[in-house]
Amino acid sequence: MHRIEELIERVSKLSKGRLGMRLTGGNPAVSRFMPPHEAGEGDMSFLSDPRYASTFAQSRAALLVLREKDAASVFGETLPERAILFCDDPYAFFAFASQILYPVPRTPGVSPQAWVEEGAEVDPTAEVAPFAVVRRGAKVGANVLVSSGVYIGENASVGDDTVIYPNAVLYADTVVGRGCTIQSCAVLGGDGFGFAPFRGEWVKIPQRGRTVLGDDVEIGASTTVDRGALDDTTVGDGTKIDNQIQLGHNDRIGRHCVMASCVGIAGSTVVGDHVMIGGAAMINGHIEIPSGSAIGPATAITGWGKEPQQLGGFFPALPMRDFKLAAAITARLPEMRRELKALQKEVAELRKLIRTGEA
Amino acid sequence: MHRIEELIERVSKLSKGRLGMRLTGGNPAVSRFMPPHEAGEGDMSFLSDPRYASTFAQSRAALLVLREKDAASVFGETLPERAILFCDDPYAFFAFASQILYPVPRTPGVSPQAWVEEGAEVDPTAEVAPFAVVRRGAKVGANVLVSSGVYIGENASVGDDTVIYPNAVLYADTVVGRGCTIQSCAVLGGDGFGFAPFRGEWVKIPQRGRTVLGDDVEIGASTTVDRGALDDTTVGDGTKIDNQIQLGHNDRIGRHCVMASCVGIAGSTVVGDHVMIGGAAMINGHIEIPSGSAIGPATAITGWGKEPQQLGGFFPALPMRDFKLAAAITARLPEMRRELKALQKEVAELRKLIRTGEA
Amino acid sequence: MHRIEELIERVSKLSKGRLGMRLTGGNPAVSRFMPPHEAGEGDMSFLSDPRYASTFAQSRAALLVLREKDAASVFGETLPERAILFCDDPYAFFAFASQILYPVPRTPGVSPQAWVEEGAEVDPTAEVAPFAVVRRGAKVGANVLVSSGVYIGENASVGDDTVIYPNAVLYADTVVGRGCTIQSCAVLGGDGFGFAPFRGEWVKIPQRGRTVLGDDVEIGASTTVDRGALDDTTVGDGTKIDNQIQLGHNDRIGRHCVMASCVGIAGSTVVGDHVMIGGAAMINGHIEIPSGSAIGPATAITGWGKEPQQLGGFFPALPMRDFKLAAAITARLPEMRRELKALQKEVAELRKLIRTGEA
Repeated sequence: MHRIEELIERVSKLSKGRLGMRLTGGNPAVSRFMPPHEAGEGDMSFLSDPRYASTFAQSRAALLVLREKDAASVFGETLPERAILFCDDPYAFFAFASQILYPVPRTPGVSPQAWVEEGAEVDPTAEVAPFAVVRRGAKVGANVLVSSGVYIGENASVGDDTVIYPNAVLYADTVVGRGCTIQSCAVLGGDGFGFAPFRGEWVKIPQRGRTVLGDDVEIGASTTVDRGALDDTTVGDGTKIDNQIQLGHNDRIGRHCVMASCVGIAGSTVVGDHVMIGGAAMINGHIEIPSGSAIGPATAITGWGKEPQQLGGFFPALPMRDFKLAAAITARLPEMRRELKALQKEVAELRKLIRTGEA
Repeated sequence: MHRIEELIERVSKLSKGRLGMRLTGGNPAVSRFMPPHEAGEGDMSFLSDPRYASTFAQSRAALLVLREKDAASVFGETLPERAILFCDDPYAFFAFASQILYPVPRTPGVSPQAWVEEGAEVDPTAEVAPFAVVRRGAKVGANVLVSSGVYIGENASVGDDTVIYPNAVLYADTVVGRGCTIQSCAVLGGDGFGFAPFRGEWVKIPQRGRTVLGDDVEIGASTTVDRGALDDTTVGDGTKIDNQIQLGHNDRIGRHCVMASCVGIAGSTVVGDHVMIGGAAMINGHIEIPSGSAIGPATAITGWGKEPQQLGGFFPALPMRDFKLAAAITARLPEMRRELKALQKEVAELRKLIRTGEA
Repeated sequence: MHRIEELIERVSKLSKGRLGMRLTGGNPAVSRFMPPHEAGEGDMSFLSDPRYASTFAQSRAALLVLREKDAASVFGETLPERAILFCDDPYAFFAFASQILYPVPRTPGVSPQAWVEEGAEVDPTAEVAPFAVVRRGAKVGANVLVSSGVYIGENASVGDDTVIYPNAVLYADTVVGRGCTIQSCAVLGGDGFGFAPFRGEWVKIPQRGRTVLGDDVEIGASTTVDRGALDDTTVGDGTKIDNQIQLGHNDRIGRHCVMASCVGIAGSTVVGDHVMIGGAAMINGHIEIPSGSAIGPATAITGWGKEPQQLGGFFPALPMRDFKLAAAITARLPEMRRELKALQKEVAELRKLIRTGEA
């Protein structure tokens, strides 16, 4: 249980003071969020959508969280005598407060069954679980969780408060910022895919750049972010990357982007800030995607203009037989276009003939 | 070597008595399946396709397996004096019997090099291999194989007879049923991709649901099944999920589905029973796909009607130059359609003019 | 630092004597490659593109590497008195030499924290790191790196000089050739996706073939190569496979192919030699793709002719609204084609009418 005043203070800190909050009518103890109609003692409910105002007003929750501007439509002219938190963004409050209510547990210390190589630095407040590895030169910050089976390579570093789930791998030299979450089997800093062609064969070029993540980055399960060839592959602060995603060598991803699962980005592509990428989008290498752009799901991107845009594109799903027919015609679109152009010309001639005939 | 009567008894059990079998002409010992023309002592051959009847009849296999209705076309009027198994479904017999002939080996017991945390329950018939982890509150059933590098989180549970291959991860609270197979580097119960937008940034929402698999589920290598946000992500009995697949939070997948590799399903989508999904299909979130539906490979699904259907859709592969041309025209299809409509109108006018002229 | 003559000798060996090289003007010590304008003592610079000849000639690099045929355009009539390496293929020299300058470090020996089962054979020059597993019957060759968390199953074998990064998995019986690189969380030899249909359910068929890689193969992070059903799944010498790729059971991939990330190939497909496959291409099963073919990115391949070709195909990315319009029309292409054909017929009739009218 948390006193709501204490919770507000911690949310304020997490939000860097940017979330406006004002408590009135009490300081109850709370332990969880519940939907308004199920909530009771110790519960919080929040209102994001004013359409649900009436259910919300009748809730028996210990604390109601809503925007001040919605108060009139919820409660009418007089505020009830109960604990109410006016908050600029109730849904963001829910997210921040949930992080406090459901922290990822850590047990500080290095397990005797872990392998921390001589020359590694592990903060005493960090947990290094059994069968985790921290190689020489690596640095593990305060309050970091290095779960079982995690590998932190030579000279890699992990910022304070970061959580790394079991069996994730950080190759040598990888940099992970503060407050990041790295899901299981993510691979950071694997070799970029670089080869010199030589007599019909492919000669491996050692990849000497790093993978560098900013702060508050999330990397999904089984996602791979290759190290750069010479320069680094980078992911900016606050960017959230879902599962099964591939980022190629020398990609530079901006801040506060989101990528849904199964996205692939080939090498040397630059993605600006606040870019949203839908699931299974595939993006070619050596492209620059401006800040504020959006890419729809399952869309293949091979180029981009100078301006931010919202692009999408995939073949529509159709009943199997219709699909086969439509696909066959798609393949013959150039022919169809030629036929249309020829027909336009012919019709113009006919019109002329008719006019001449009329004349 | 197995006496065929013993094998039949075990197949009968595996198939829950649903596979009709009748042995005649002997009870030989057998150890493997071989194609009819290569088979000899100790071998079984089965006939699925009556076109191969003649080769099959001449086989020197110790046991022939076929449907009773194919006997006349294979042997003529008189059955030969040899061991014959009449079976409703010879191919299913092959599959069930192969499971008996080639079991996944286990060595019961917990390795001293594993880490089984206090408060975990491991059945004494289960194997927990070196560097495997079973956290407190977790339950590991009878005859389970927990391979090296596998992580079974707090309060997770694994049903009897399940096989978990090296380096797979079950986050805390994950439930895996009986008789499941989890391939290497599969990740079950990783955080769903849930964030609250806040001033252009993304605030992580702790994911508190679970990942729950039924019985006889297969999960492929490097496949990821996220835990639910509040409710669970579920996969029904008998569903088979190939490699490199992503299931998002709160997905509910039915029973006896198959998904080929590289499929992605965004969150909160419901898939019915007996649904077949082709490789690399991409399915949006919050969709309901009725039982008995089928989705072709590389197809992007963004919605669905009420009825089961078979949907497909991808751009046809063409010689590179033709593709570029067809794609350029695809982009201009709206223009082409307008031109076609204009032409239809114009032709109608011309026809009218001509008629008028004729009148 | 390496004397350049020694470096040349080692590059010659790596290239199997196929890279023509001739040193003139000195035998400096070098330690790295740098761009011409940044290079100085101890540095090498190479010229691939004659357009950069002038910058290159002015470089203060200790060694200049270029094609002999570019010498005149770089230096004019007289060679300067400095160390110059004439080389058939400067970029290939860069790749080979970089492998020597930046070797993957190994510390020979088996860690006391590894688990090497009785009956495994590990060459004394190989490194087996903490928490790595080598099962009975497995063979690990000379100079191999078996990193932490790597699993090498029963009777698997790993050829000399191969590097296996943390948490990769080789199931039982897997064969990896010499000089291969296996990135983290790659899974080799997992079960192929094989099931017999039985009364609406799916009965697992044990997969008894192997995964067999040739020499000099690269397997990317989180890539999965399934074992064969009965025969083997094979990857030929020198083939380079990027991250997040899926190869199905019984695929046979030729020599010196490249596959960019996120490719999926269903089972029983045969890919010839020197085939190039773009990122996120999806290839159906039971196809034969001839040597020398190329497949563009994000292309779905469902069949192939006899000849090598270059195929591509994906829906063009468009501004979101245009995409929706174009997709809707794509779905109605059969109707549009019928309309076009009808119009052609009608126009022909009109022309006939007009001609008749004229007659």
